[in-house]
Amino acid sequence: MSTGNSIHKKLFIPGPVEVDSGVLNILSTPMIGHRSAEYSELQKRVTEKMRKLMYTENDIIFSTSSGTGLLEMAIRNTTVKRVMVFSIGAFGNRWFQIAKANGIKADKHEAEWGNGLNADIVEKYLSTGKYDVATVTHNETSTGVMNHLEELAPVFKKYPDVVWCVDTVSSLGGVKVEVDKLGIDICVSSSQKALGLPPGLSIASVSEKAFKRAGTVENRGYYFDMLLLLKYIRERNFQYPSTPSIPHMFALDFQLDRILKEGLENRFKRHIELAEYVRGWAKKYFDIFPDEKYASHTVTCIKNTRGISVKELNAKLGEKGFMISNGYGALKEKTFRIAHMAEMRKNDITGLLESINGILGL
Amino acid sequence: MSTGNSIHKKLFIPGPVEVDSGVLNILSTPMIGHRSAEYSELQKRVTEKMRKLMYTENDIIFSTSSGTGLLEMAIRNTTVKRVMVFSIGAFGNRWFQIAKANGIKADKHEAEWGNGLNADIVEKYLSTGKYDVATVTHNETSTGVMNHLEELAPVFKKYPDVVWCVDTVSSLGGVKVEVDKLGIDICVSSSQKALGLPPGLSIASVSEKAFKRAGTVENRGYYFDMLLLLKYIRERNFQYPSTPSIPHMFALDFQLDRILKEGLENRFKRHIELAEYVRGWAKKYFDIFPDEKYASHTVTCIKNTRGISVKELNAKLGEKGFMISNGYGALKEKTFRIAHMAEMRKNDITGLLESINGILGL
Repeated sequence: MSTGNSIHKKLFIPGPVEVDSGVLNILSTPMIGHRSAEYSELQKRVTEKMRKLMYTENDIIFSTSSGTGLLEMAIRNTTVKRVMVFSIGAFGNRWFQIAKANGIKADKHEAEWGNGLNADIVEKYLSTGKYDVATVTHNETSTGVMNHLEELAPVFKKYPDVVWCVDTVSSLGGVKVEVDKLGIDICVSSSQKALGLPPGLSIASVSEKAFKRAGTVENRGYYFDMLLLLKYIRERNFQYPSTPSIPHMFALDFQLDRILKEGLENRFKRHIELAEYVRGWAKKYFDIFPDEKYASHTVTCIKNTRGISVKELNAKLGEKGFMISNGYGALKEKTFRIAHMAEMRKNDITGLLESINGILGL
Repeated sequence: MSTGNSIHKKLFIPGPVEVDSGVLNILSTPMIGHRSAEYSELQKRVTEKMRKLMYTENDIIFSTSSGTGLLEMAIRNTTVKRVMVFSIGAFGNRWFQIAKANGIKADKHEAEWGNGLNADIVEKYLSTGKYDVATVTHNETSTGVMNHLEELAPVFKKYPDVVWCVDTVSSLGGVKVEVDKLGIDICVSSSQKALGLPPGLSIASVSEKAFKRAGTVENRGYYFDMLLLLKYIRERNFQYPSTPSIPHMFALDFQLDRILKEGLENRFKRHIELAEYVRGWAKKYFDIFPDEKYASHTVTCIKNTRGISVKELNAKLGEKGFMISNGYGALKEKTFRIAHMAEMRKNDITGLLESINGILGL
């Protein structure tokens, strides 16, 4: 109905991802009251499963917003002095734009696009003592770069006065992120990527240290006030200050069962294998854009070494029921991106790559 | 599945409302890319239908958030001097809390609960010249009071430097709100009330005057930056700065067709008739809480003159597959609330009231 007469295009874009029909069907569950015991049980159940997926004992905030909203929550609620933004691309830069839009003092280090962040850079900035918040993008969809959080964590541990915020919007659910072991204070993610849900819900784990900091920050705002969100979790038994997107909570409850049933290690391994498969294809016919050391497990950014028209390729793929992504911003036509996350299996990818080969005569 | 073994309770609470199965089914539509032409067409189509429902030519902002998020957008984006909050209950007070949480200067006039706002009060405050923004709650679910916007509009027209923000979260879609004729600058609503959708989407019409004002305001924030939202509508052809809740947009597209097919005047008349029916019952067995002149068309707040246990009544109603609302905050057990909005018909209400009569032996 809503999508007109066109055929459905299977999404290989880095969000929203293709959503499994089981999850889509759960969205149609009849509504329940958001102040009911039934809702509290739902949010509590989802919290417990999210904690497993995130390897954390921290509180879990669910927000009816895109991930961007919780990135804003993270730095607006915790910055007293100054934010240090470690950017590796467009979504890293968004942290900086968010700081500016809120009148929060911030500096930015932007890696050359295609590169990851190294521990020395983090050390260099944090050692100045100027910063009480720092942000890192785990997986940057604009460049297909994934940072190595385990190499950065030891530096952050040296600076316990810094609230460490990590954007795992396009990695969580597909890549292992051990929040407590790494020491991440605020770990933000979103529904429409490796978690395999439709867009409309974002999620964050928040440490006690971050909540304590929020208590010292004025003008935290209302909708993304971390302490108000926490109050409804702790004092109202897993509820939300306003009305939450109940369909998304139903869907996340269902999908986390599937994720845990697949097994976290199996799921992460599947994502690595799919990434290696796509990179193998990319290197055979094109090249990959990022430094391979930092190549993402959820999305591959391919250098358009053949000078094809990505726009035309995508139009032709559309006729066959597929959609990939052009490059992001200045990388448009110079790169293109194939996402391989959430419920994708190897035969889905094979179907896409064979179609591309057919269209391009490779 | 997600709701366990309990029977579904038909919702007569003032949001989330009972959602029709046709709308629920549309939520399961497969995803589309949010940067696609298909998405732009969807948002454009929904915009045109919303303009009809709101009687406006203004731009329409769709936000992945609850209505509270857009209330925050409204005053954070437009206040340079000081906000005047005209409150008639808990959700009126929320405007004031939002202002405080953002460090925005604000004053509040709170009517005695159960009363509406009159034009003289508005005149008294606006004539001081202290305010450049004023907020009014059209329909206050905590008290069952609905303000008469048409009596207030002439005063607001006398003060063109004041940006007039109206919360129609629990009225739009059930009650006529002629935005342009009234001169409302920012009219905020939400999906889970008289529009008959699940929670998770909020909507606002915004006037040119309000956008111009936003251009003079610093620190508008990012997620609810009205000018960024407008930029994506105008320059990116009806898109959204981050990833929108696509299932909700599908559902709103579908539901607005139904609303327009029912006919706006028919729909508003149906809501008035249902309200009169519930008030008739309430006055026969109990009494209504608000001054009847201001009694809401979408939710009736009933004075518990019999001293029943509302909590027990609701538990027994639950066994029969119904849910009503206890009183709000300090009005708990002193009042209870029956919502009659969205797709409710007279036989739905009759079923509920007969059950209440049966339980209470009336």
